Amino acid sequence: MRVERLLEDFSAGTVAALARVVSIVENRRPGVDDVLGSLHGRLGNARRVGITGPPGAGKSTITTLLTREYRNAGQTVGIVCVDPTSPFTGGALLGDRVRMERVALDPGVFIRSMATRGSLGGLAAATREVTDVLDAFGFDRIIIETVGVGQSELDVARTADSTVVVLVPESGDSIQTLKAGVMEIADIFVVNKSDRPGADRLRSDVKLMLGLRKGSSYANVPAHHGVDLRRATKPVPAASEKPLPESADWTPPVLRVVAAKEEGIAELGESLDSHFRYLEVTGELRGRRRQRMMERVVEVVERRMHQRLWNDRPAKQWLENKIDELEAGSVTPYAVADDLLSAHGHLVRGPSA
Amino acid sequence: MRVERLLEDFSAGTVAALARVVSIVENRRPGVDDVLGSLHGRLGNARRVGITGPPGAGKSTITTLLTREYRNAGQTVGIVCVDPTSPFTGGALLGDRVRMERVALDPGVFIRSMATRGSLGGLAAATREVTDVLDAFGFDRIIIETVGVGQSELDVARTADSTVVVLVPESGDSIQTLKAGVMEIADIFVVNKSDRPGADRLRSDVKLMLGLRKGSSYANVPAHHGVDLRRATKPVPAASEKPLPESADWTPPVLRVVAAKEEGIAELGESLDSHFRYLEVTGELRGRRRQRMMERVVEVVERRMHQRLWNDRPAKQWLENKIDELEAGSVTPYAVADDLLSAHGHLVRGPSA
Repeated sequence: MRVERLLEDFSAGTVAALARVVSIVENRRPGVDDVLGSLHGRLGNARRVGITGPPGAGKSTITTLLTREYRNAGQTVGIVCVDPTSPFTGGALLGDRVRMERVALDPGVFIRSMATRGSLGGLAAATREVTDVLDAFGFDRIIIETVGVGQSELDVARTADSTVVVLVPESGDSIQTLKAGVMEIADIFVVNKSDRPGADRLRSDVKLMLGLRKGSSYANVPAHHGVDLRRATKPVPAASEKPLPESADWTPPVLRVVAAKEEGIAELGESLDSHFRYLEVTGELRGRRRQRMMERVVEVVERRMHQRLWNDRPAKQWLENKIDELEAGSVTPYAVADDLLSAHGHLVRGPSA
Repeated sequence: MRVERLLEDFSAGTVAALARVVSIVENRRPGVDDVLGSLHGRLGNARRVGITGPPGAGKSTITTLLTREYRNAGQTVGIVCVDPTSPFTGGALLGDRVRMERVALDPGVFIRSMATRGSLGGLAAATREVTDVLDAFGFDRIIIETVGVGQSELDVARTADSTVVVLVPESGDSIQTLKAGVMEIADIFVVNKSDRPGADRLRSDVKLMLGLRKGSSYANVPAHHGVDLRRATKPVPAASEKPLPESADWTPPVLRVVAAKEEGIAELGESLDSHFRYLEVTGELRGRRRQRMMERVVEVVERRMHQRLWNDRPAKQWLENKIDELEAGSVTPYAVADDLLSAHGHLVRGPSA
């Protein structure tokens, strides 16, 4: 079978096979779930770093420099770039791309840009799955770079082990323009362009805000898809580790970076190492990864329900036959939805049921 | 019952009742589906205008001026503002807000800003529902203003009868940075800041692109949620109207606007009127509105399935018990999802089944 051959090549470390598996996952080709399922046992190797922030904050430059840092230390790096603003802005600037392409020539680096996808599954789900593929392939570090728009920062936090929020002095009058959600996902703050006016003020504002915040960040992020699974995914120490006392909370450092002059990148790398050790020792790493797996199941369940219901001709036909009544106002979409589920909802149980 | 009293006040045209109903819908308070269901029969009065474009294109100013235009013609106006970029940018500029607040003092105008919401249902669904509430309340015109980021332009197209895409000369080197999806949702193009260099070039570029595009726009937009319902929602002429021959396609005009000098707004209003007449005469208005209703049902069905499955303690517990096996890699999220649906999928049929 061709998929088996592909997975063999993937396991052997062939980059062409990696690229094909990523494409299968990104485009949801038939058999995608089997491919992902077969990789599941190999997850957990890579450290996943999320980098988010407003457009123009220098995320691509920081990603490139951090990648070089990791490469110098002998680690392989997978990069996933997500830019949901692309319909209008066209994404990263040419200079960023050129810089990144130079990094991409290094065989120890693999870069994938994610295109916007339709509602079903969505960009966030695809990003999580592509990140899994890179993890299973064996990259030591995975950097997920995403422009901070709407829901996507929260979604980065769920994909990454450590989330870096990049700010710049000109990104707003003050830190007060940041919404609560952004403060809560950051494990590390970077104030880029720190040689510009307003950078000191921005750093002290962020620190002030952090002082007002109490406790560990991740537990405060609302549960994915509205399913509260925190009871099952609280911090779990690795068998070999002695847990720290609960009071040992992580306070996100606020780093001074001037990416254009390559200043502060080594410190960012060290902060990421510290954070990872913190995650390991407190058991939060296991907790986060367990939560990620639970959320993956919830995601797959939603997708399956959708497909099984709407790929069914009778269910679709049933809905199409209601359109005149809906238009006349004699039935409501809410009543129609209830009736449809009561008549066809059994379909979601699947062929095996 | 208190909801009945609220709906009475709503029907009587009390603005306080409108604001409360909007809040119930936006925050998905208990009973929200009943409230929306009771309004369903009153939909279809308002003309819905979507205004989208990149940040800084002048959407708020155009919305304000168009509102004044409608008010001068004696029409009431509901406005829904959606800005999913708010986590970092903080939304509209102060000047825009001040201008808009002046309009908001007019009792014939109602403005609602939509906050970002979690994954469940999502911002797009909430926007569609709030728009319905404004329609049911009796506004003559509804303007949905949304910054053009990722999927949201397509979602505006589904909420609005007519979609205006606002561009500015500085928004990109050329029209080629626009993705295909943006071109296809536009019923009217506005080139704002048309007194600046590059505006003529941008307008002719847009016209060139439109020349390359063939046929009606809406049918080319991918089906919502991946459910293809186009067979049931093709253009349907109103009983009293004689349909135009199919060749009478709408070619989006490309308007010259300088919003800061209030130039070109009357022409925008006229173009919107022409487009609405086109929609009525060709039957596309009915087609679009029927499609909107079908998509609403799909949306409600997804939400119901999610709630019925995960609000159930046994289903959640079942998943929580799988976490150790998932972590050990002895089962995959895909197999767990299948097993869960086969054991608990019947729940989505609801209490009545």
